[in-house]
Amino acid sequence: MNSQQNPNYQPAPGSDGYPLLIKQLLNRAKNTASDEEIVYADKKRLTYTEFFSRLNKLANVLSDLNLQAGDVVAVMDWDSHRYLENYFAVPMSQYILQTVNIRLSPEKILYTINHAQPKVLMLNSQFAPLVKDYQFENSTIEHIIWLDDDGVSAEGVFGDNQAKVVFEYDELLANAIDEFYFPEFDDDNIEITFYTSGTTGNPKGVFFSHRQLVLHTLAECASLALLPNKQGLSYGDVYMPMTPMFHVHAWGFPFTATMIGMKQVYPGRYAPDTLFDLIKNEGVTITHCVPTILQMVLGEAQSRGDGFDGLKMIIGGSRLTEGLAGMALDAGIEVYTGYGMSETAPLICLTEFRKDDPEMSREDDIARRAMTGKPVMMVDTQIWQDGKPLPHDGKQTGELVLDAPWLTQSYFKNPDAGKELWEGGMMHTQDIAFIQPDGTVKITDRLKDVIKSGGEWISSLEIETILSLHPSVADVSVIGVRDEQWGERPLALIVLKPEQQNTSEDDIKAIAEQAVEKGIIPKYGIPSQYKFVDELPKTSVGKHDKKLMREMYAGQKGI
Amino acid sequence: MNSQQNPNYQPAPGSDGYPLLIKQLLNRAKNTASDEEIVYADKKRLTYTEFFSRLNKLANVLSDLNLQAGDVVAVMDWDSHRYLENYFAVPMSQYILQTVNIRLSPEKILYTINHAQPKVLMLNSQFAPLVKDYQFENSTIEHIIWLDDDGVSAEGVFGDNQAKVVFEYDELLANAIDEFYFPEFDDDNIEITFYTSGTTGNPKGVFFSHRQLVLHTLAECASLALLPNKQGLSYGDVYMPMTPMFHVHAWGFPFTATMIGMKQVYPGRYAPDTLFDLIKNEGVTITHCVPTILQMVLGEAQSRGDGFDGLKMIIGGSRLTEGLAGMALDAGIEVYTGYGMSETAPLICLTEFRKDDPEMSREDDIARRAMTGKPVMMVDTQIWQDGKPLPHDGKQTGELVLDAPWLTQSYFKNPDAGKELWEGGMMHTQDIAFIQPDGTVKITDRLKDVIKSGGEWISSLEIETILSLHPSVADVSVIGVRDEQWGERPLALIVLKPEQQNTSEDDIKAIAEQAVEKGIIPKYGIPSQYKFVDELPKTSVGKHDKKLMREMYAGQKGI
Repeated sequence: MNSQQNPNYQPAPGSDGYPLLIKQLLNRAKNTASDEEIVYADKKRLTYTEFFSRLNKLANVLSDLNLQAGDVVAVMDWDSHRYLENYFAVPMSQYILQTVNIRLSPEKILYTINHAQPKVLMLNSQFAPLVKDYQFENSTIEHIIWLDDDGVSAEGVFGDNQAKVVFEYDELLANAIDEFYFPEFDDDNIEITFYTSGTTGNPKGVFFSHRQLVLHTLAECASLALLPNKQGLSYGDVYMPMTPMFHVHAWGFPFTATMIGMKQVYPGRYAPDTLFDLIKNEGVTITHCVPTILQMVLGEAQSRGDGFDGLKMIIGGSRLTEGLAGMALDAGIEVYTGYGMSETAPLICLTEFRKDDPEMSREDDIARRAMTGKPVMMVDTQIWQDGKPLPHDGKQTGELVLDAPWLTQSYFKNPDAGKELWEGGMMHTQDIAFIQPDGTVKITDRLKDVIKSGGEWISSLEIETILSLHPSVADVSVIGVRDEQWGERPLALIVLKPEQQNTSEDDIKAIAEQAVEKGIIPKYGIPSQYKFVDELPKTSVGKHDKKLMREMYAGQKGI
Repeated sequence: MNSQQNPNYQPAPGSDGYPLLIKQLLNRAKNTASDEEIVYADKKRLTYTEFFSRLNKLANVLSDLNLQAGDVVAVMDWDSHRYLENYFAVPMSQYILQTVNIRLSPEKILYTINHAQPKVLMLNSQFAPLVKDYQFENSTIEHIIWLDDDGVSAEGVFGDNQAKVVFEYDELLANAIDEFYFPEFDDDNIEITFYTSGTTGNPKGVFFSHRQLVLHTLAECASLALLPNKQGLSYGDVYMPMTPMFHVHAWGFPFTATMIGMKQVYPGRYAPDTLFDLIKNEGVTITHCVPTILQMVLGEAQSRGDGFDGLKMIIGGSRLTEGLAGMALDAGIEVYTGYGMSETAPLICLTEFRKDDPEMSREDDIARRAMTGKPVMMVDTQIWQDGKPLPHDGKQTGELVLDAPWLTQSYFKNPDAGKELWEGGMMHTQDIAFIQPDGTVKITDRLKDVIKSGGEWISSLEIETILSLHPSVADVSVIGVRDEQWGERPLALIVLKPEQQNTSEDDIKAIAEQAVEKGIIPKYGIPSQYKFVDELPKTSVGKHDKKLMREMYAGQKGI
């Protein structure tokens, strides 16, 4: 019986039903973390008490700009205390935070700004050139707040075209009043929006409500803290992001760290020496990043002849390979995998470690860390083929579909794409996976890259891994090409090593046949065709451009 | 901007907004814990897969009884897998679970049943005598489901008066269908109700919605897991309750353990040898209880010349004294404090341990474990006097008031008491406390026992502790009596040890004066009057009956 329906369960006056608002994430820290620190590289140190005071001041600054509830405030900044302040003060004032991905091309950055239509832009002077030629006259932006660590003035960048710049951030805060009442409102209000990378086509906007963010924060905290201390989160840990705050709000981790009241370190721009110094000097114990950043800090450590003393690191965004995982472990990093995407806020799966884990060989341990992991609290993972769930037998592959309390409910101003995302009542990841009986998920391919041969699915990634083991192969990509009999059949595009140019198609094929004999892949997984090429087309971020390859070889006939 | 207000944030069809329902707590366990065990003493072992199947069956059994959404299903059982099944299947079917406190007097048990008006009663044969004479003809109960481990038949207890008994629980489940679709509904629906102990007057009903329970579960999980492994929760732990499932739903821990997918052990009736055997044989690593149960298992261990190998134990319900904490530590129990009450679902505060805790003397360590602890995730703790918050300076005391997403929104069918509970917009605990700058709460008294003297508050507990240190004192209670000048002044009621009957009032007073000299209490804390009595009136559960004492000495004049 709903409390609204049965008067016996009527809430008392004063019991407000506790909407799940971002401001409620501060309750514990306000009580327990007054003297704990928030550090911005070598530039600034705040206590939580100062941080709370700055949230009030920032809210007053925004309030003076005469915004309406639901207006968008966009941020272009490196990871900083300022960004953290915007994470809280903007949604707590009932505005929507847009975290602008400054790694996109300038055109796409402008696309996302034009699409989200912010009224305020918080602009780091280092990114000003990116948007310098932006026609602010024709945009929704009414105010630019200038963020600067380098003594660069807005006039210097914008010249005369800077009428919308309303002072520098720190100056504004210095002059603002230190008291603000953050309102109560419905927790379905949207608190944040950001954009997918859009490797094909324009970036798509995802959005999350206050309620969703609070739930993501609680579940992320619980799921990371349940891991044994060696890998997991506990009181006394020190957090620093190495996935940028503009990218899926740094995995929501800044919200989690603030809720707990942990020491937090924000590194600014990701320079290897800065990251390494901060880890060492500030005693950072837990972080997260993409494999490229891990390689970068490993390189820095190697050049210094130094290592990491059990730093906990969750890898996401791209696959953690076994090789890289091994190198990280050797350097003293407790590395493992998190899985998620922009649409999922992002946390969905995490490597599981248990206090009663059996003794494990190094090989098995590394393999576990490189898997996609198990679903975190409240998350339902299923694999579907043709809209029907498949058993979790560790063999059958289908599209990974999800339910969780923190998934984007659609795409911003794109209901058609939203409808597709939620086809059949679960969220489609476009990742192909199998699930083991113990719940461990293993992504085997992207849906668009999987090869559908005679009603069976062939993982292009898996075939590539096998062919890459041939000593003559420098690079390889496997794509599906049309086939009259089977629908699609795999075509292997192979770059040979310079010294192995006389390798034959049959040589390569032999290794695939061995994999069939060993039961690693089914017989129909052996590519029907092999093409030796000088190089493989790549996307702007260096990934194999399979879309282009499929176009290039679309006319290719099957067997 | 609310998604309902701005069409750009409209949820896509199929994205259901994810109501926070009890059934969603099962998502992770369904994926990851198929083979994990749920154990009922030495009587039954289930895998989670069997447990999920039994939830479907129980839902079908209940469905056959033609209940309506919002109908109440009451349970009177020892801690068992059956109780756990009812924790889930009842609210998941949109009925309300009533956990009947079988430790109340038979009259009060019947009061709570008559008040909550269940349609179904799940009745353990051992409790049947308690309700045997209950006029079922005049009650709302339409069906009694018989729970039995001892081969006792309903006919044997009820004789002819057993027309409402519809079979035995396991028999019903054995014959039920194994498939059930648990519906989606608004997460504001009430999922559970239970009653306060009602030491004065009738028990009061509290109630919690699905949403509240899910949030309590996530926050409890996060807050316990954030503690270092030695004290906290991690994957691989084995859970057994020693606070009964009828008492504030065993701290909500069965929901938490099931969400995680942990091995769980339910001990039936709390017999010391059974509890000890289960801890040893099933490898229990984490539990919770009241001090009395801790004493019981310590006694059992001592009589066996055995100990506990780092068993983690959270104490709540009554104060953990330093002496008992020390004994528990010596026996190998990692003991600490949780704070909460029926109205708070219950978790509010928990002792904090950090991985960077400084080295601590045994005395300091024990003192920390015996404090009330720090607020858990999302909880706001304040201390109020006259409706205004006091600073958290570790000195000033006021009533502890709370906000959290899981507090009862009122009392069941008692809006006046509900209004009082929520006076001023926060929940009143009726506990007097101070809060340290680091957020640690220390309860110093119950509001009704505090003595208001000349505008200052005197903690009766504190004065009692000091007087109890006098070697002649066997027992002591301090109450407030009316005083024309000061409003109230403390009166000390003292039971002297038999061999110390010639102790004088001044002897006792001297120890209070010493405490003033040492700065432990203020001068106005010295009792104005001392009365030597043969014994102190006690309540049915053995606590000092201060209400009665205040009545007995109401005419007592001040100085």
